[in-house]
Amino acid sequence: MITVAEASQIIQNNVLTLPLAEVSLSESIDRVLGEPIYADRDFPPFHRVTMDGIAIHFATFQAGKDTFLIQEVQLAGEPPKTLQSPANCLEVMTGSVLPAGTDTVIRYEDVQLTEQNGQRYAQVLIAPAGVMQSVHPQASDRQATALLIPAGVQLSPAEIAVIATVGKATVKVTAYPRVAIISTGDELVQLTEMPLPHQIRQSNSYMLQAALTQIGIKAEQFHLHDDKIALLEEVNNILHQFDVLLLSGGVSKGKADFIPEVLAALGVQKLFHEVAQRPGKPFWFGRMANGPVVFALPGNPVSTFLGYYKYVQPWLRANLGVKPLQLPQVSLATEVTFTAPLTYFLPVKLHITPHGAYEALPLKTGGSGDFAALLDADGFFELPQYKNVFSAGEQYPFINFRD
Amino acid sequence: MITVAEASQIIQNNVLTLPLAEVSLSESIDRVLGEPIYADRDFPPFHRVTMDGIAIHFATFQAGKDTFLIQEVQLAGEPPKTLQSPANCLEVMTGSVLPAGTDTVIRYEDVQLTEQNGQRYAQVLIAPAGVMQSVHPQASDRQATALLIPAGVQLSPAEIAVIATVGKATVKVTAYPRVAIISTGDELVQLTEMPLPHQIRQSNSYMLQAALTQIGIKAEQFHLHDDKIALLEEVNNILHQFDVLLLSGGVSKGKADFIPEVLAALGVQKLFHEVAQRPGKPFWFGRMANGPVVFALPGNPVSTFLGYYKYVQPWLRANLGVKPLQLPQVSLATEVTFTAPLTYFLPVKLHITPHGAYEALPLKTGGSGDFAALLDADGFFELPQYKNVFSAGEQYPFINFRD
Repeated sequence: MITVAEASQIIQNNVLTLPLAEVSLSESIDRVLGEPIYADRDFPPFHRVTMDGIAIHFATFQAGKDTFLIQEVQLAGEPPKTLQSPANCLEVMTGSVLPAGTDTVIRYEDVQLTEQNGQRYAQVLIAPAGVMQSVHPQASDRQATALLIPAGVQLSPAEIAVIATVGKATVKVTAYPRVAIISTGDELVQLTEMPLPHQIRQSNSYMLQAALTQIGIKAEQFHLHDDKIALLEEVNNILHQFDVLLLSGGVSKGKADFIPEVLAALGVQKLFHEVAQRPGKPFWFGRMANGPVVFALPGNPVSTFLGYYKYVQPWLRANLGVKPLQLPQVSLATEVTFTAPLTYFLPVKLHITPHGAYEALPLKTGGSGDFAALLDADGFFELPQYKNVFSAGEQYPFINFRD
Repeated sequence: MITVAEASQIIQNNVLTLPLAEVSLSESIDRVLGEPIYADRDFPPFHRVTMDGIAIHFATFQAGKDTFLIQEVQLAGEPPKTLQSPANCLEVMTGSVLPAGTDTVIRYEDVQLTEQNGQRYAQVLIAPAGVMQSVHPQASDRQATALLIPAGVQLSPAEIAVIATVGKATVKVTAYPRVAIISTGDELVQLTEMPLPHQIRQSNSYMLQAALTQIGIKAEQFHLHDDKIALLEEVNNILHQFDVLLLSGGVSKGKADFIPEVLAALGVQKLFHEVAQRPGKPFWFGRMANGPVVFALPGNPVSTFLGYYKYVQPWLRANLGVKPLQLPQVSLATEVTFTAPLTYFLPVKLHITPHGAYEALPLKTGGSGDFAALLDADGFFELPQYKNVFSAGEQYPFINFRD
């Protein structure tokens, strides 16, 4: 039986090479850019006024002149106007082009406007600090043709704003893998059905679908019965249409646990079966040559849940080219004893101590079937194998599922 | 001019009361539940077998019997079978009902199966620890009719799984507000247009739209020209169709800055105009009596960006009933001097020190028009008003926009 670290490594060695997809900029948030973005023009593209006020020729002010005839107004969005005389100024608005012949802006707060014989004048009250005051100079941020965003960056609103500015209505991004969620187990009925006393409704597939939605992936859901012949045909069809299969159930030692056998018969190479962990030990992982990757998670809901957050989600992030999350280390609030030679994933609730630090409070649960216990949990604590007593105050990695 | 803290308080005093919406469970992830969820049955609904193995009558084993005739198999999904004799056992599968007359499960790993005269027997190798071993007892997690999830909880995959189990295909959640994004400024052209030398393409509205998408809100975008008559008519129409207006531009002292005047004329009560901060000082905020809330942010892209993350996003979260985020305190990496009597929102990049702690590195930027600088930033540092020197190692609140 392999360790948690070995299982993680094997999984990460099987990252897919996904194609690029072209998406509308409006739908590209959180995607990973698949092409570099270059500046089509200088940033800013012109000497851009940054304050509402007046624009003057600085040398004229320096030579002793402090009151200027207001020649006209330069609004944002107007073609540049030209200073007709050094004795003049223009009123300028934030976002406008600096008028030709001017080189300094003085904001309204620092001038006094007067009127005389039908002419308007501006008197400078507070001397400008220097030439180009309140001007955002052309190309001072980035120059035309400069690389703005390299491929591989995950798009936040900051990148979206820049891509809009360079006029790209669509962008190339890493495509999402096609993911099939497959639940098995004859005790399961559909959400909309009334279960008989010995049946329960499906929940794992809804959990997986919701978690995938959070990272942008729209998965397709299937429910298959514990019938080997039917499984062979149905899983085969799914293998040919998807990049990733997330199964839950049918991987343990039971008489109706056909999944490992069915996958092997269909040519999916087993890379491991069983990981030294609780919950979720019977986890099966494999891959078809040049084909889909198959995560066959145990069907107990807490096992499926842990398997998704510990293994599937980091792997999906790696496929998409998203930086791996560094798991935070959090202090254990109370002692935990666990004697089995397994890595123990313990549901915990975070709380904040009087000193402002996070602490993880272990939750009492009814085992890997007790998914109602997860309602009170914020995530799992990963307690290492071959250690039996975990003392209060010790720090362990925390896998957050409410982030 | 009011402070940042006062502005935040006024904004939070104007949280909307949003109606409930009924959404499909598959689309409910991250929404805030608007109804309590109760258990329709016990959790688990029957004594549920948790290991593949055999089920016996414990007292018989205790009385000295260690080998049992295998009577039949109890599969998951089958109605419960009955132990015909205390000398018998049933093979039971994970997820199946515990057969009537049995009370203890011993996993396959701890028994030996033998065959004799066409009969199959199981010999117990490792004694069960007690009655109900490897059984998840009916109602041990939650009882039928128990409150499982109160209204007001933000739905994570854990809640989705539980809601699926109780058979709810749709859930009531807090409705999203109807948000209009309105950019103004005659220097702006559409993304798909080729700007003239004195024009630039819109970017703020794409930034805002992307940021809203990240919290689930699909906003509508408008671009309005700096024409007072047209603004009066168009803003009036928008005020009657939306709950929230996010404007950018037109709120400063310029000759074409009509927004405060237009909003006042349309009956939007000004709650403040100008906040003691850089960037984004000319921020205007108001509300119509029993009507929409209006955030009129300055149009410089860094100002719009900061305004959204500092004010709009926390307010939207409060509207939806999502717990406020606690801003993390992060250490400043290098000294910063800032002498204006304003709260200073400084773009910073996070990096990890050799000791594993986060540190915020101030970025050199070309001011509030330099939105390309945000490509290198992870967020804003909030440096308090009336302090001029911020030393390396001091901790300040960090507003993350890449989270």
